[in-house]
Amino acid sequence: MPAQISSEDQQLSTKIAERLKRDEAGLVAAVVQQFDSKEVLMLGWMDDEALRRTLRSGRVTFFSRSRQEYWRKGDTSGHIQMVKAVALDCDGDALLISVDQHGPACHTGTRSCFDGRALPAFVEPVFVEPVA
Amino acid sequence: MPAQISSEDQQLSTKIAERLKRDEAGLVAAVVQQFDSKEVLMLGWMDDEALRRTLRSGRVTFFSRSRQEYWRKGDTSGHIQMVKAVALDCDGDALLISVDQHGPACHTGTRSCFDGRALPAFVEPVFVEPVA
Repeated sequence: MPAQISSEDQQLSTKIAERLKRDEAGLVAAVVQQFDSKEVLMLGWMDDEALRRTLRSGRVTFFSRSRQEYWRKGDTSGHIQMVKAVALDCDGDALLISVDQHGPACHTGTRSCFDGRALPAFVEPVFVEPVA
Repeated sequence: MPAQISSEDQQLSTKIAERLKRDEAGLVAAVVQQFDSKEVLMLGWMDDEALRRTLRSGRVTFFSRSRQEYWRKGDTSGHIQMVKAVALDCDGDALLISVDQHGPACHTGTRSCFDGRALPAFVEPVFVEPVA
């Protein structure tokens, strides 16, 4: 007699699936943050199955919009992301994935996908006390 | 003679616009992070004009997917986001907006839109040394 496999192992639980507000492609945005330094490493996309794999396996899996396929981060590069925690935002269209990132998160070799990519911006004037 | 207004004041600069990889609705994801605590506060959406306003004004402006209109964060609630820095990721489909958030970021009253909204997840087993 084969071992029973619960439907929860095969599909994202209904309770979570009901809270997702997917875009027209069936995806939600997934913000990936290093758990200790709090650095934002990258943003990827997940459908129900990518989220299920991420929650069940301890490794982050995305759905690639350009390649239209699942990719488990690090399978090619070795730069894996071990899941520390996952949260879904108030309106269900964004996930925050807390991870331990091994090596650089970015395919260009930088630690985060935002490193060295600042845009020119006007920021709030800061009041500076004259040095006495 | 009226003051000259450069095209840069009216439109997002071509240099930045060329780097954006917009979705089918013309939007990129914008991750908002508190500049000092590094907490991820929320995720919003920006088109070219919302990004231009954010870069030029020092206040974060999003484009609402549900209401199909611009909203400058805090205009209704008072919970404004002052821009500290903006970066665009390696493939141009995500922005990281570093801000000083006044009050809660979430419309539900929590500091971040992810607070108290964790999903059950399997995480990497952690090796614990027995206490001697």
